[in-house]
Amino acid sequence: MRAVDIIQKKRDGGELTREEISFLIQGYTRGEIPDYQMSAWAMAVYFRGMNARETGDLTLEMAKSGDQVDLSPIAGIKVDKHSTGGVGDKTTVVLAPLVASAGVPVAKMSGRGLGHTGGTLDKLESISGFSVEMERERFFAQVGEIGAAVIGQSGNITPADKKLYALRDVTATVNSIPLIASSVMSKKIAAGADAIVLDVKTGSGAFMKTLDDSIALAQAMVDIGTQLGRRTVAVISDMDQPLGYGIGNALEVKEGIETLRGHGPSDLTEVCLILGSQMLVLGGKAKDTEEARAILKQHIADGSAFEKLKVIAAAQGGDVAQIETPSKLPSARRQAEVKAQSDGYIEAIQAEEIGIAAMLLGAGRETKESVIDLAVGIVLSKKVGDAVSAGETLAVLHINDASESKVKEAEAKVLEAYRISAQPVIPPPLVYAIVTKDGVTRY
Amino acid sequence: MRAVDIIQKKRDGGELTREEISFLIQGYTRGEIPDYQMSAWAMAVYFRGMNARETGDLTLEMAKSGDQVDLSPIAGIKVDKHSTGGVGDKTTVVLAPLVASAGVPVAKMSGRGLGHTGGTLDKLESISGFSVEMERERFFAQVGEIGAAVIGQSGNITPADKKLYALRDVTATVNSIPLIASSVMSKKIAAGADAIVLDVKTGSGAFMKTLDDSIALAQAMVDIGTQLGRRTVAVISDMDQPLGYGIGNALEVKEGIETLRGHGPSDLTEVCLILGSQMLVLGGKAKDTEEARAILKQHIADGSAFEKLKVIAAAQGGDVAQIETPSKLPSARRQAEVKAQSDGYIEAIQAEEIGIAAMLLGAGRETKESVIDLAVGIVLSKKVGDAVSAGETLAVLHINDASESKVKEAEAKVLEAYRISAQPVIPPPLVYAIVTKDGVTRY
Repeated sequence: MRAVDIIQKKRDGGELTREEISFLIQGYTRGEIPDYQMSAWAMAVYFRGMNARETGDLTLEMAKSGDQVDLSPIAGIKVDKHSTGGVGDKTTVVLAPLVASAGVPVAKMSGRGLGHTGGTLDKLESISGFSVEMERERFFAQVGEIGAAVIGQSGNITPADKKLYALRDVTATVNSIPLIASSVMSKKIAAGADAIVLDVKTGSGAFMKTLDDSIALAQAMVDIGTQLGRRTVAVISDMDQPLGYGIGNALEVKEGIETLRGHGPSDLTEVCLILGSQMLVLGGKAKDTEEARAILKQHIADGSAFEKLKVIAAAQGGDVAQIETPSKLPSARRQAEVKAQSDGYIEAIQAEEIGIAAMLLGAGRETKESVIDLAVGIVLSKKVGDAVSAGETLAVLHINDASESKVKEAEAKVLEAYRISAQPVIPPPLVYAIVTKDGVTRY
Repeated sequence: MRAVDIIQKKRDGGELTREEISFLIQGYTRGEIPDYQMSAWAMAVYFRGMNARETGDLTLEMAKSGDQVDLSPIAGIKVDKHSTGGVGDKTTVVLAPLVASAGVPVAKMSGRGLGHTGGTLDKLESISGFSVEMERERFFAQVGEIGAAVIGQSGNITPADKKLYALRDVTATVNSIPLIASSVMSKKIAAGADAIVLDVKTGSGAFMKTLDDSIALAQAMVDIGTQLGRRTVAVISDMDQPLGYGIGNALEVKEGIETLRGHGPSDLTEVCLILGSQMLVLGGKAKDTEEARAILKQHIADGSAFEKLKVIAAAQGGDVAQIETPSKLPSARRQAEVKAQSDGYIEAIQAEEIGIAAMLLGAGRETKESVIDLAVGIVLSKKVGDAVSAGETLAVLHINDASESKVKEAEAKVLEAYRISAQPVIPPPLVYAIVTKDGVTRY
């Protein structure tokens, strides 16, 4: 078997066999197939696509390229959740304690990511002392004892995906649905999930800008899960504006705490209930999403979800006092308001611009080596549909060490992000569709 | 400027600017742009193509990537000829002396190639002592004194093309018309040609299997020449069977000598007259191809073309006695006949199979390091349209050191190559079309 023949077959629209895909991926992982053949192949896939069988095989080969976590020592159905990424997305901070309080074991391995704001690990580290490093056995024991643990990915998980993703990033081959879908799913499979809930963001601030593309990506991932024997559900949720109000690590944890206490922003609360309901159903703790939703609301109302966050934090060395009194979380030295320049209604908030503004203030990493300032970020004052008058505050910047020029740049980005219409605006739906192996249900 | 953005632009069907193409090619030549980005770009070009302007710019940037030969010390219009390669193609052996005898300066830099049989340099080295290595000044002086010289390419000609071609070969990105066209033309431009005659082969034994593809490639190359100020004409000639009868280095030189003496195979003679006529017109030695053809026929008839070969050989150290008496050229120790297994008419001779058979006997290089046996090869006894009876000889293998199994394999290939029909067959035309900047003339 030769890599060049496999590239040519895909270039000409052929369907690759399991053996051919295995040859490519394992050969690439071992360094026997060079980057220049993989990038040509990825570009051929970009143009020709892959069918569900090929995509499933690719996923499995990438999952098999490194360590595979065996979660079977933990009792119950382990349901993992994955978001394709958005601005202000603090759902994991809410969902981990929320679904754990409802009895679904949460054995979550998270990443830090290179996004505009930190990843889940960075957010949780806003809580003083919270440690995301843990031996495998301790991790399993914690999930067994208290129902949840959130740690950093350790070991050699999906090295093929890591290598291929880095290559795709510099060869304009990121935007291919089968390649994106297999990349996401290979990590979930290798991390040992029994079932998977996917939060596929759609809109200006998402990787997938259109609903059709988002649904296609969701379908590809659900197909993979189904093919590999993992029940998988995808929720297509809005990212035409940031989720909630806070963007920045400690700011997002604060909002997560408010949500667990039952007085979080309505959009964040609703998205968490929708995703959490799917997790409860897949985890066998509710017969349908209606029942699941009632259970989750009950666990918020009775304080058990909030209590679970404190238990998790305590188990991982975090300062519980900061959770009880979020004003004790890191906070920025000064604030600056960004004010509306005209009257009207908020029509859109370009989430990506807001994310970049938060990064300029130090909330995210510009490069892998950047150090995050956990306290800084942005709190939106207005969201889509809100009325606004000229001079009224649109958003508040939380600032520590950013230079005056960076602050100015961030302000400009926030202003740019807000589009104001003279006409009243109806806010976008929170969720557009649910994709399961049985099809697409649009809302 | 970043390579990834240029790849993405081409991937999305955009037109690359001169600056972008220069950035890619010069950066690649200097090793600043890695193979994995160039292969992804080449695959994007495979799918998206390039327009005439982009292809011209790519050609010029590749020509500029290394040494550029300045032929201006040689008086007259220097017309180069290039063939896209076929089996039994010994036209350069005939045309160099033929057009030089008619006053067009021939300053030919040839390659060895990795084809089924040797390149022009290998063929000429069948003549004992013939040296293809020469200092630049001596080369110019010889062309000035006797009108022609054929040498090996020396120096650092089109390193970008060499590097890119090697990369395309292993990434399934060879078959792209703009990439093929710019590769060929960059070498001709760098080698200093004022005008270029292209022999684009079409048919089963050619790189381009269909007439439409061959015409498209010819047009791309003519467009490049026109854009870069080099008069360029392309002749689309047949490669649905080998050209002439001999395949193998000394065997081809013998046939070339016969052709220069006026009794070569009719197909080879005709193709040489057609290509040579175009060269004479571009070289300013005839007002049209009709006049040019008459001049060339005259130079064959009066012996001056044959005489010119002897003069060239003498100037380059070759044994003129072998040219006068071709039986003194290297010849194989034994011959084996391949016989027809049925009665009928020759319908086709798969040139590629014949080429592989010749290579198996030692006439070509299987790898860069292979040593060619100049004496061995194949002489066809039958060509398309000929009647044949079962048991009659189709072709004769000329054998030296090939193992018995290789000989058997070569025999089988030759038999496979011959397709025999029960019905009479009309031989294919020799030339299908002429492509100039003014358009395509089909025959």
